[in-house]
Parts: sequence; C-alpha cells; structure tokens
Amino acid sequence: MAQPLTLDLGLAKTEKYASRDSGDTVEIVERPGGGFSVVMIDGQGSGRAAKTLSLLLSSKAVALIKEGVRDGAVARATHDHLFMFRHGQVSATLDLLSVDLKTRTVVVTRNADAPMLLDDGSGFRTVEVNSGPIGRYHRTRPSVQEFPLEEDLTIVLFTDGIPHAGRRARLAPLDLEAFANEHFGPSRSSQAMADVLLAHVIERDGGRPGDDMAVVALRIAQHAEDRFVRRMQAQFPIT
Amino acid sequence: MAQPLTLDLGLAKTEKYASRDSGDTVEIVERPGGGFSVVMIDGQGSGRAAKTLSLLLSSKAVALIKEGVRDGAVARATHDHLFMFRHGQVSATLDLLSVDLKTRTVVVTRNADAPMLLDDGSGFRTVEVNSGPIGRYHRTRPSVQEFPLEEDLTIVLFTDGIPHAGRRARLAPLDLEAFANEHFGPSRSSQAMADVLLAHVIERDGGRPGDDMAVVALRIAQHAEDRFVRRMQAQFPIT
Repeated sequence: MAQPLTLDLGLAKTEKYASRDSGDTVEIVERPGGGFSVVMIDGQGSGRAAKTLSLLLSSKAVALIKEGVRDGAVARATHDHLFMFRHGQVSATLDLLSVDLKTRTVVVTRNADAPMLLDDGSGFRTVEVNSGPIGRYHRTRPSVQEFPLEEDLTIVLFTDGIPHAGRRARLAPLDLEAFANEHFGPSRSSQAMADVLLAHVIERDGGRPGDDMAVVALRIAQHAEDRFVRRMQAQFPIT
Repeated sequence: MAQPLTLDLGLAKTEKYASRDSGDTVEIVERPGGGFSVVMIDGQGSGRAAKTLSLLLSSKAVALIKEGVRDGAVARATHDHLFMFRHGQVSATLDLLSVDLKTRTVVVTRNADAPMLLDDGSGFRTVEVNSGPIGRYHRTRPSVQEFPLEEDLTIVLFTDGIPHAGRRARLAPLDLEAFANEHFGPSRSSQAMADVLLAHVIERDGGRPGDDMAVVALRIAQHAEDRFVRRMQAQFPIT
C-alpha cells in the first residue's frame, strides 16, 4: 500500500476596498469519482454585477463537476453558456483545481490571466497561462496541466488582483517566485500560505485592496494521524 | 452598524470500519443571495452504493441551492427525485444548514433521524426531529427551524452513526446534551467541537466505527480581526 497522504487545502479572499460584494467566488466540492475540485471564478468588474456573474458561472461549473463531467468539458460548457447568453460582451476567469483519485493526479484547468505558483520538488516557480478568460470569443478552450499526486507537490492559484496589487502606487511588480520561495516553507499549512500572500498584497495596495482578491493553496503532505478523518473549516466574517 | 460577527464552521467525518467509501457526504456552498449552506446527506447502507446515492443527492441539492431555490423546496425536490427514480425502495437523510444574510437567520431544514444540538444562549439542549428520511413515502416534507443570527448561537448536526455509536457493545446511550455542555465550551472552535465529538463516538465503537459518521458544527462568534477575510480549509487523507 502507498504511503498515506493528506490533501491540505487553504483559501483566503477579500473584496475590493469599499465594495460590499466580491466578484471572486471559490467553491470546494467532492468529485463523484473520488477526490475533490476547487472552482474559482473572477467575474469581470467589481461589486454586485461581478458577484452575480461569478455566482452564476460557479453554479454552472459546480453542477457539472458534481454530475461527473470531466474538467475540460466543464470549462468549455461554462464558457459556451456565458458566450451564448451574454453575446461576447462579458468575460470571467475560471480555474479548476482537481485532485482525481482515479488517476492519482492533480489537474489544473485554467481560463485565466494570472500565473500560478508550482513547487513539484525543486522550489517554487511561476507557470504562465496562455488560455485567457471565458466569455469573449467563439470556442475558447482551457489550458490543462496534470501532475502526479506526490508528497510535497504544492500549487497556489490566485485571481489577477494578486499580481496587480501595488500598480496604483506604481510599485515594482511583485516577484511571486521569490515571495513563494521565501514565505512558503515546507512546514507552512496551505491556509498559512494563502494568508501570508493575501496579507502581503493588501499591504502593497496600502491596506485598501484595488480589486477583489482570492488565493487558493493546495499542498500534498504526509498523513500524520493514525485515523482517517476528513475535515473542513470555514470562517466567514459578516457585518 | 451591527457588531461584526464571524460564522465559524467545522466538519469532521469518517467511514464505517473496513469500508473504503463513506455514504455520508457534506458540502459547503455559497448562497447566491448571500451567506452559505451546508448540505449533509446520509445515504442508506454503507460502502459504494451508499456513497453513490449520497453523491447523487448532494449533487441535486447543491445545484438547486446555487440556483437560488429556497431550502424547503430543495428538500422537497431532492426527495421527489429520489422517490420518483427509486420507487420508494431507497432512503437517505438530508440536512440543510443555511446562514441567510438576507433574513439574518440560521435556517435548519431536516429530513433526518438523529437529534441536533442547539445552544441559543442557555446551554446546549438536544432538539429532536420529527420529519424522517427522504425517499420512502409520497410527498415527504422537511422540518424547518429558524434562529436569529446572533453571537454565540451554536448548532451541531450529525448523522445517525453518532448517537448509535456504542450500541454494538451495549453501552448506555450517549447523553449528547451532557457531552456538549461538558466539552463544547465557549472558546472551542467549531472544528474542535466536531473533532471531540467524533473522537468520542469512535471510542465508544472500540476504535472501529460501526457506521459512516459525520459531524457539522456552526458557531456565531464575535469578529476578532480588523480585516474582513473569508477563509476555508480542508484536509482529506488518502491512501
């Protein structure tokens, strides 16, 4: 039997300063074939319209994943739906991060702008995305990357509010690779990684986020307990 | 402006001893109108068939919630779907725990057997449920309870593997109320409450859970940070 592993997942998100709603929606759902998927949508713009768009698209993607549809088809269907009903006038980014226990792989399906951070054994590097958002053009396709499910594999995905932070103040671009190698040490939990990156970019925006922001981190760690208990936590502040 | 609050949610679950799959599925999703919902399904039996049933029903319920359907209608629709296609031969329990930011209430919609634990200011008490599982009879309806969204409100829901633990060893029934008042102190996080209850009932089953088991805890706490960051974590052990 293989060495038991734990999938450790963490999410931190906040909305643009002075905005009530965030256009970044993140959902975690169990896959019918085993494992789970994270769906992250960044709806165009900010505020209520972006939030509505983002919830509509995440609703579509979550329903398809839970029906057993493969991730590439989920991204295409979500795009087609948006393009058909909004006539190419509205866009959104879509990220699917799936742990598939059937294939024992981590699959990243992206229609996005922001790079991702990846550590598959030799330190963190940024991986650019060449697919672009959904909703604008006929037959947009996602970019898909697959990684073997192995100890220490770490993937950090985020919406474009993260790399864009500090632009308003004309700061030098954030060196994500250097930041990750300095702050995402091997003993850091996924939640701690998401938290430290979000806190850093909010600081780059002078404490007032210039955009909606979401960070999702996944780390494959050795399973440390005797027992196999699945856990999930959420903390939602409300005013 | 009202005092800021944090919704603190925790989940712990495990499967029946020597079973690969758990028939208890729990999902957390964002509500399109604001707030979130927890969906907990316990599919009849154990192992793969129970897991498939449970994922099918959670898929249906999650899709409806994300489309904006009200909880009472979600429970009825999920029942009708199961009853229609399985002809009354298969049952499941269904729990919906929703924080609705429009009405500023916590709504508990149940088709279940197990009682729930509630502390709305005067200590924990068990609240029995009179609705019963879905799938067996024509036009089954859920029981619905609504609570104002106030600091310190605590609700703990679980599948019937929890109260039934210890039966095989003919232990005296677990006094859930006494357990909660002893172990769910005000400084305990929701995850700690779910963990301590799950660990206790596994011990009552001699370390070999007699059934699939899931515990969901929700506590409304004072918001302690300056910033409003939404967080979610998950730990999934895999072999």
